[in-house]
Amino acid sequence: MKKIETIIRPEKFQPLRKALSSIGIGGLTVTEAAGTGKQKGQTGVFRGTTFQIQLLPKIKVEMIVEDNQLDEIVSIILETCSTGNIGDGKIFVYPVEEVIRIRTGERGNEAVI
Amino acid sequence: MKKIETIIRPEKFQPLRKALSSIGIGGLTVTEAAGTGKQKGQTGVFRGTTFQIQLLPKIKVEMIVEDNQLDEIVSIILETCSTGNIGDGKIFVYPVEEVIRIRTGERGNEAVI
Amino acid sequence: MKKIETIIRPEKFQPLRKALSSIGIGGLTVTEAAGTGKQKGQTGVFRGTTFQIQLLPKIKVEMIVEDNQLDEIVSIILETCSTGNIGDGKIFVYPVEEVIRIRTGERGNEAVI
Ligand SMILES: Nc1ncnc2c1ncn2[C@@H]1O[C@H](COP(=O)(O)OP(=O)(O)OP(=O)(O)O)[C@@H](O)[C@H]1O
Ligand SMILES: Nc1ncnc2c1ncn2[C@@H]1O[C@H](COP(=O)(O)OP(=O)(O)OP(=O)(O)O)[C@@H](O)[C@H]1O
Ligand SMILES: Nc1ncnc2c1ncn2[C@@H]1O[C@H](COP(=O)(O)OP(=O)(O)OP(=O)(O)O)[C@@H](O)[C@H]1O
Ligand SMILES: [Mg+2]
Ligand SMILES: [Mg+2]
Ligand SMILES: [Mg+2]
Repeated sequence: MKKIETIIRPEKFQPLRKALSSIGIGGLTVTEAAGTGKQKGQTGVFRGTTFQIQLLPKIKVEMIVEDNQLDEIVSIILETCSTGNIGDGKIFVYPVEEVIRIRTGERGNEAVI
Repeated sequence: MKKIETIIRPEKFQPLRKALSSIGIGGLTVTEAAGTGKQKGQTGVFRGTTFQIQLLPKIKVEMIVEDNQLDEIVSIILETCSTGNIGDGKIFVYPVEEVIRIRTGERGNEAVI
Repeated sequence: MKKIETIIRPEKFQPLRKALSSIGIGGLTVTEAAGTGKQKGQTGVFRGTTFQIQLLPKIKVEMIVEDNQLDEIVSIILETCSTGNIGDGKIFVYPVEEVIRIRTGERGNEAVI
């Protein structure tokens, strides 16, 4: 199992969720976050004053999925959340060792869905 | 070391914390999250209108623990947070490569507690 | 690639960010969290009444970095965020399997920066 974590523009959340839902992906967790990427991470000194770095509001979406769902979900995120402009966000993929549904105690792929 | 991440009903946080505390688990991080699971992830089309999918408020609890604490903590989460009703939440387990206590620079199991 | 997750005192965020920025680290995600560490996790019973455990407001900073950046960033966190007092926080390091920049589809180290 994998965790797909994606940091996206807040206005892209509803389109993403709809697209995921249309392929049967319902399980996801959303958190409000803020961040900086490449551009915003650069400080510039102008006449001795360092420019302030701003944090931008972002939405973090986390989905724990079966290994064989990874590629399709990544494609959907890329299609839905890319505008071509700076700040579209990132996708991070992590290993997951165990998933358990609290209601039933089911484990593994049974518990993902 | 492992990360145990559990998404639970907000009202289950205090009972869980108490139960963890009673076995000496004090280190945890809490975040407000929102999410959908299996049921809420299904969209239905009714006379051409797609039902809206609601996000439910949830609490995310993260605990970094020693490997040998994993099973006991999972048992405590299952006992404390299960109601038998849909929406009880999930437990996700991830590998952790390093833990460092900022105050002392201690690393590994020494830094977990 | 690695995820460095650090839970720090809120007032240490701006100094940390500045220090990271000065070595070219711009990509980071910030979340508001709350937590307890070792001391706060202990309950005491005094005349039959259990002391309440308080949650302290903390900032969670997540950085996905190249493997060879790990040590330098850990050093910067330790230097910037340690006060020597209880509650300075923790650093957790996790494996990352894939990173993708949504705007371009770039993957791996190209997408981290
Ligand atoms: N290396 C990273 N580690 C953690 N979070 C990151 C990292 N890079 C980006 N982020 C998060 O993703 C958000 C969006 O990043 P952003 O799209 O601006 O990245 P970028 O590398 O600057 O790409 P682009 O050139 O498309 O803007 C940031 O606000 C931050 O929350
Ligand atoms: N696959 C998943 N990935 C990420 N988060 C998830 C996933 N599944 C569930 N969650 C999170 O857990 C919360 C509770 O899920 P929920 O208990 O409704 O899961 P479920 O699979 O529908 O189980 P149940 O049948 O017991 O309701 C969701 O609101 C969401 O935040
Ligand atoms: N094992 C853990 N798992 C998850 N989060 C933790 C853990 N330990 C600490 N934290 C988080 O880090 C924050 C700061 O922890 P804290 O510095 O008090 O740790 P500590 O072990 O008590 O160290 P110190 O002795 O320096 O106070 C906590 O509020 C919590 O959010
Ligand atoms: Mg950017
Ligand atoms: Mg459910
Ligand atoms: Mg402490």
